Amino acid sequence: MAATPLVLVGLGPIGRATLARALERRGLAVVGACDADPALAGARLSDLVAGAPRSVRVVSAIGDWKALPKGTVAVVCTSSQLAAAAPTFRALLAKRIAVVSSCEELTWPWRRSPRLARELDALARRKKVALLGTGVNPGYVLDLLPAVLTGPCLAVRAVRAHRVVDAALRRGPLQRKVGAGRTVAEFTTEARAGRLGHVGLPESAELLCAALGFGRPRIVEELLPKVATRPIATDHVRVEPGQVAGIDHRLVATAPRGVVELHLEMYVGAEAPRDEVEIDGDPPIRARLDGGTPGDLATVAALLNAAPAMAAAAPGLRSVLDGPFPLCRARG
Amino acid sequence: MAATPLVLVGLGPIGRATLARALERRGLAVVGACDADPALAGARLSDLVAGAPRSVRVVSAIGDWKALPKGTVAVVCTSSQLAAAAPTFRALLAKRIAVVSSCEELTWPWRRSPRLARELDALARRKKVALLGTGVNPGYVLDLLPAVLTGPCLAVRAVRAHRVVDAALRRGPLQRKVGAGRTVAEFTTEARAGRLGHVGLPESAELLCAALGFGRPRIVEELLPKVATRPIATDHVRVEPGQVAGIDHRLVATAPRGVVELHLEMYVGAEAPRDEVEIDGDPPIRARLDGGTPGDLATVAALLNAAPAMAAAAPGLRSVLDGPFPLCRARG
Repeated sequence: MAATPLVLVGLGPIGRATLARALERRGLAVVGACDADPALAGARLSDLVAGAPRSVRVVSAIGDWKALPKGTVAVVCTSSQLAAAAPTFRALLAKRIAVVSSCEELTWPWRRSPRLARELDALARRKKVALLGTGVNPGYVLDLLPAVLTGPCLAVRAVRAHRVVDAALRRGPLQRKVGAGRTVAEFTTEARAGRLGHVGLPESAELLCAALGFGRPRIVEELLPKVATRPIATDHVRVEPGQVAGIDHRLVATAPRGVVELHLEMYVGAEAPRDEVEIDGDPPIRARLDGGTPGDLATVAALLNAAPAMAAAAPGLRSVLDGPFPLCRARG
Repeated sequence: MAATPLVLVGLGPIGRATLARALERRGLAVVGACDADPALAGARLSDLVAGAPRSVRVVSAIGDWKALPKGTVAVVCTSSQLAAAAPTFRALLAKRIAVVSSCEELTWPWRRSPRLARELDALARRKKVALLGTGVNPGYVLDLLPAVLTGPCLAVRAVRAHRVVDAALRRGPLQRKVGAGRTVAEFTTEARAGRLGHVGLPESAELLCAALGFGRPRIVEELLPKVATRPIATDHVRVEPGQVAGIDHRLVATAPRGVVELHLEMYVGAEAPRDEVEIDGDPPIRARLDGGTPGDLATVAALLNAAPAMAAAAPGLRSVLDGPFPLCRARG
């Protein structure tokens, strides 16, 4: 089987990690990379990530690619916000390049950005390529996994999922994004301005409500600081007792035929990182993943596990619910 | 959306439970039932299962049905063995009726019954209907669920799954099938003759090896008795200390690119029933379902959750890997 030609768009921490791991995969061939940062324009990919093909140079815009192999798939790691990433998606789809992206809002855009979702779906169908938002959260632990856990149930009334992440083990930008090292007052101001926190809980809730036939939910979200009770130092930040260690983010989605409750704690020094899912169903199901699903690695994995099937996937804007199953077929 | 017309074939404990639960589901309409037992021939379904339509009478053979609604799906709960169930599958497929079955060997028949698998696949394709073997074990806890748990992994080297079932909470035939109440000598004789134990571990292992790209496995199985250390009484059997409480069934599948280890303990009085999955991967994943996935209910659920999609599924012999995702869309 020929390798799937892959281009990377966005060479931040997740994009570079995805690139490094893509190079290790037999079924993928990295044929291009794009980043808007002028400092990277024209750089040899091999100078940015060891082992990358020397012949590939970073372009500044999708339009700079002249000819890409047929069946090329783009992995886009640029923005959490759909509006910010949409021009990139349009440019790729216009070139008939299938897209898989870590853009959190792309995971389930039909509810919050219905116009953009319809426009991208129509463009993808017209160009006969697929577009998918995936990752570990949203895209797996708080949505697809709970949905699959209902498989042995005769009836489901509610789904509760709780994810605890030790942000100290994650990249610097994420530690800052959860407010580690801020005062509670700073946190509150920044959170109100939407500059802190996690993007994707409503997407997960809406995906679950759609998957389980709950109907359209009314969603309430609450973002509180998780305050440190002991000093915590990571490679990127130092948190004193009384300062913010991270986020305590809760969501309740009340739909006509069921309820989804999501709880995400992401803070430096988190004890007992884990993912827990409780299906209030017949029979009830309680699942626990001790240690959790390490976020950055797992997001890279979700992107790379999805990529090979994208070239052959049915055209249009897809969701992880449309399959194929998220499986890892790579060796260590 | 119109309800999916459903016929039940095989009115044993699982068939009747499936029927009873199908009657509660809005999206399904029970239009027929078939059982080879002459004592049931012509019986009103409502006399066998409360709430069933009075107009439906049990037929003794598939051929006795004259006209069934277009898009009818059959749920077949007759035998664990593919060879025994095959005539039923042939008769249904010949009538262009899609089939979902609890027949354990149908879950992954390509390796152990390749000729029969090819024949049924060809017939199903010719008749443009789908045929699927599913359930909870095989079909979910020891195969599909572990496969989906690899979704956030960059690489997978091995999968280990352990299921502990309290047979005391299961139906009488299952308690006898695991040897509860036998002496160890009787157990050994019966096990050697293939009259005891669980059908489906090799199917789960082969499904996993195929899903994860491990290649064809070499499989070793070991079936030992689980001996009671205290007296246990259920509604169906009494077990004295030193007698057999159930089975301790292990399987190791060694494939060119990975290893699958399955361990199934099914015995009366089992402590801490649970399902555990360990993915030896990058990152490693450890999942635990406390209380496990109750077998009989969950098998019924797996059949009913799969049934609605069967009428529209791509023709041919399918596996749970082909999707759609096993989801419950029913209310309590």
